[in-house]
Amino acid sequence: MKAAVLYSGGKDSSLVAVMLQRLGYQVELLTANFGIFPSWNSAAESASCLGFKHKVLKADHTLMEEAVDLILKDGFPNQGINHLHREVLELAAENYPVVADGTRRDDRVPKLDITQIQSFEDSKSVQYINLVGWGHKTINQLSKQLFNLIKEPTSMENNSDYEIEIRCLITQMGGADAAIKLFPPHIQSRVIGWREDEQK
Amino acid sequence: MKAAVLYSGGKDSSLVAVMLQRLGYQVELLTANFGIFPSWNSAAESASCLGFKHKVLKADHTLMEEAVDLILKDGFPNQGINHLHREVLELAAENYPVVADGTRRDDRVPKLDITQIQSFEDSKSVQYINLVGWGHKTINQLSKQLFNLIKEPTSMENNSDYEIEIRCLITQMGGADAAIKLFPPHIQSRVIGWREDEQK
Repeated sequence: MKAAVLYSGGKDSSLVAVMLQRLGYQVELLTANFGIFPSWNSAAESASCLGFKHKVLKADHTLMEEAVDLILKDGFPNQGINHLHREVLELAAENYPVVADGTRRDDRVPKLDITQIQSFEDSKSVQYINLVGWGHKTINQLSKQLFNLIKEPTSMENNSDYEIEIRCLITQMGGADAAIKLFPPHIQSRVIGWREDEQK
Repeated sequence: MKAAVLYSGGKDSSLVAVMLQRLGYQVELLTANFGIFPSWNSAAESASCLGFKHKVLKADHTLMEEAVDLILKDGFPNQGINHLHREVLELAAENYPVVADGTRRDDRVPKLDITQIQSFEDSKSVQYINLVGWGHKTINQLSKQLFNLIKEPTSMENNSDYEIEIRCLITQMGGADAAIKLFPPHIQSRVIGWREDEQK
């Protein structure tokens, strides 16, 4: 059975992709894009290094505008990112019977609660899978065993999270300072291939 | 890395075992027993059919007595089963760095909440994994693809859940009718091997 994994090129989404593939799903990796900045390149590169099929999931520009409105109103990104994520999941569900993401047990955003998951599955006749059965320590350890990872400061070129296009849009609206406050620079882990003794 | 999976021979615990094995863990299956009835045989048989190492995790008789006290006081099995499950997880954590069970997203019992999970991981220096990222529909579909399953009415001989020894102890205490009311007969799925096109 086909399964779409919402994919950023990070450890979590890479791990759920490998997990599903090794259980027999035909996995395709999707990176959402809202037409603001081509932020999928880094995810596409990670997907290619791991040998997965990767597609850009084109989403409407207005969804990003709604999210940015929420974020600027809240002064905090959580609600806006959750809004985007739910819309992206629904978009993915139009073409796949199974949709997964790398949400971990200790993630706060984006995260669907149990009622949102049930409503998503029922309304879209889709099956949703995530990593909430796994904590960050386990995922860090396992991903070091599976993947070659690079640790680096996040930039426009090496990250495919929603954050990149959100920051772009806020900056375009004249809010460069607000963008940096909302999304301060941080260090990320990016998947750049398999460990030698692992195979797809 | 070694991982223990609390194992009943059912779909959920079999699936989490396969998942961990295919991600590279050295999986050992554990079935708890409280010295009341040798209820592990069915789980041991399923484990053997799948080619997994299986052990009986001997737990103290008094834990089962405490659980039965709770169950009879509540007139409802949930709290007692959760009590047993937490104790069994802690016992497993004494010998394994990773402990997993087949708790699904839609399971109610046994289930640890997020605070209990964090406390379990921190106090025992263990990593805990479960299937709460997966719903029953997905698990049913996937387990049909992976396993040969038999559907049958639950009996003393074909089930290795906590339920069997709980019922035994309540019956020994003269409460046969109470035992049947608390645990009415039901149909179960038991794993009896791999599907032909699957391999360990």
